[in-house]
Amino acid sequence: MYKDKFSEDVGSFFRSPVREIFKRVDLNSIYSFAGGYPSAETFPLEEIRAAMSEVISGYGGKAFQYGATQGVPELREAVAERCGVPVERVQITSSSQQGIDVCTRVLVDPGDVILTSNPSYLGALQSFRSYRADIRGIAHSDDIDVFRRRYEDMIDAVKAEGKRIKFLYMIPDFQNPSGESLTLEERKMLVELAARHDFLIVEDSPYRELRYEGEHVPTMYSLDPGRVIHLGSFSKIFAPGFRLGWALADPEILDKIYVCKQSLDLCPPVFDQYVAAEFLRSGRLDANLRKSIALYKGKRDLLLALLEKHMPEGVTWTHPEGGLFLFLTLPEGFDAVKFYDKALDAGVAYVAGEFFHPDGSGKNTMRMNFSFMSPERITEGVRLLAGLLRSEIE
Amino acid sequence: MYKDKFSEDVGSFFRSPVREIFKRVDLNSIYSFAGGYPSAETFPLEEIRAAMSEVISGYGGKAFQYGATQGVPELREAVAERCGVPVERVQITSSSQQGIDVCTRVLVDPGDVILTSNPSYLGALQSFRSYRADIRGIAHSDDIDVFRRRYEDMIDAVKAEGKRIKFLYMIPDFQNPSGESLTLEERKMLVELAARHDFLIVEDSPYRELRYEGEHVPTMYSLDPGRVIHLGSFSKIFAPGFRLGWALADPEILDKIYVCKQSLDLCPPVFDQYVAAEFLRSGRLDANLRKSIALYKGKRDLLLALLEKHMPEGVTWTHPEGGLFLFLTLPEGFDAVKFYDKALDAGVAYVAGEFFHPDGSGKNTMRMNFSFMSPERITEGVRLLAGLLRSEIE
Repeated sequence: MYKDKFSEDVGSFFRSPVREIFKRVDLNSIYSFAGGYPSAETFPLEEIRAAMSEVISGYGGKAFQYGATQGVPELREAVAERCGVPVERVQITSSSQQGIDVCTRVLVDPGDVILTSNPSYLGALQSFRSYRADIRGIAHSDDIDVFRRRYEDMIDAVKAEGKRIKFLYMIPDFQNPSGESLTLEERKMLVELAARHDFLIVEDSPYRELRYEGEHVPTMYSLDPGRVIHLGSFSKIFAPGFRLGWALADPEILDKIYVCKQSLDLCPPVFDQYVAAEFLRSGRLDANLRKSIALYKGKRDLLLALLEKHMPEGVTWTHPEGGLFLFLTLPEGFDAVKFYDKALDAGVAYVAGEFFHPDGSGKNTMRMNFSFMSPERITEGVRLLAGLLRSEIE
Repeated sequence: MYKDKFSEDVGSFFRSPVREIFKRVDLNSIYSFAGGYPSAETFPLEEIRAAMSEVISGYGGKAFQYGATQGVPELREAVAERCGVPVERVQITSSSQQGIDVCTRVLVDPGDVILTSNPSYLGALQSFRSYRADIRGIAHSDDIDVFRRRYEDMIDAVKAEGKRIKFLYMIPDFQNPSGESLTLEERKMLVELAARHDFLIVEDSPYRELRYEGEHVPTMYSLDPGRVIHLGSFSKIFAPGFRLGWALADPEILDKIYVCKQSLDLCPPVFDQYVAAEFLRSGRLDANLRKSIALYKGKRDLLLALLEKHMPEGVTWTHPEGGLFLFLTLPEGFDAVKFYDKALDAGVAYVAGEFFHPDGSGKNTMRMNFSFMSPERITEGVRLLAGLLRSEIE
């Protein structure tokens, strides 16, 4: 029995691709396009120090005591105001990764279907797999009729199998990994499909506020607040070291999330919540966010220009209007998982696109992050990677 | 389908007794023996402020970036040194509640048996239920032969049903809710039983360092590090607002916990970890802990003296050597759940013991916390509660 001590439920889930990607990566000794890390220079250290001191003086011991499972009122109110929703609809999460996990735990039974884009966020796929969900990835099409038909065909197929669709998981803004966004028309189409076929939508939008060009598109949540659960994060607009995010949802759903979160970790980190609330309230967060956007826009533009200049023919990439990533497509037959060891040996890292594809496709794709490294290191890293690719595919 | 949107798996789990207990409780307006809160006066605000400033100066942006899933090396090393184990055996958790949840998730399939004491910690029972574990509570006996036989009989019964015991969940030090501890002989007996019948032990010990009299007893982990998962917490020895704990376990088990934690929340709060590490390293934590112990010892002694003085005949209670709780037993036939509304209306709160009993017994018991309130409020609260009980049971 001791040999069979682990849960059978999560068998395949235990082979973590994420660990495989990062096990040999020392971020300081290689050129890493791999992680989804913000740049540490966007963390306003002296303002954080001041805000922390204010929180200690203003709240005293309360800032270090257990807090409400829903989050401290100050942060819930600040998030509610920022998102334009009633405070009753806000649950603070201990990271938006926890938001993904808790939604899945509350909604999904083994065998239930979750629809996702193809590709989609690896950390979400990993969580879905741990609950033995049946993940169906659907590729995007710029032709909305084709896009809709792909969804309708998948929904029909799932119904024919006698299975339930529990929710559609979607990252509509500057998607991880592709960097691409859904148009308003596409969002409306998906929300209508969800209403017609009676499933929920989990809208994961950690990059939403990192827009470098173009106009903001309304959230899917704003189109149907009763059917969409919206997940937000402080990791990309403030600092990931605080592990704070939020969920906006229907009160009936929040009620289940509440009970689940109680058993997960009782409450989000309390002191960190007061600091985040203070940052929001005082306008420090927005002032800092403007600086981050200017910084990341420059890095995105640099990466796009470098790819244009150095990449061999047959390589294409997305042109994201915001976020932290772009997505490279290499010639048919290229295997980015296999190539990874070679790249790492040469000192450059990325994440193979295959890991983001629930249907196992995407072998000839890779995700590149442009937020983490300095412009100098981005430049050297692209030169190095392009040189390796050139000798591989030409 | 929209009506059936929630997971069936966690059906009964969604009726949370914890919420029922606390929904009408404003901790500042009533006498609360209900929570498991440390006293806010034990949080060393000025030393925390100084440590935070040192962390910002010493680590810079690194303190606000994503961190390792296992925890930051500085805190893992400090915990390893404190617990006398190799650093490879330490996983930092986002609260010891998360430690309970993640162990259950990694080890238990629906229907698997978890052995617990009867009574046991409500938050653990809630987590076990959410994974549809079959919880079997076993009452303590001061006669070790009787105690052993109860376990052997239960193990035989489970085997006869063809079920698997995945682990024994035990709080050996100043148990929640009873306040009582296991002797070394009892610990050895349970570890031997686990080895003979090949199941694991999850040793949850958040109160271990809060000892007010008597000698420390070795952890169950130290008796069999390959078979016992030890869970520790900073919530009672530092501050719960940081949501930090640790798990010590066999590398094979930690490996699964790692993958699971990645999908739960990626990593523990990073800044908070550096502050905790700094508190441990500098000796500030131990200096503060000595003060907390003196404070809580005084409150425990006060509560014991007040119960002796005010409680009506037929009421008995435990005499804990440490921790935050003691446990009251009222005359047979008394219903502490039913009585709770009356107590709350009069302005005094406790937790009904029934909630801690997986077998549904313990209706005539209640848990009383003595760490949270001031001596003055403890005194008034006991007078009030004893008066209510007197008119109820005499």
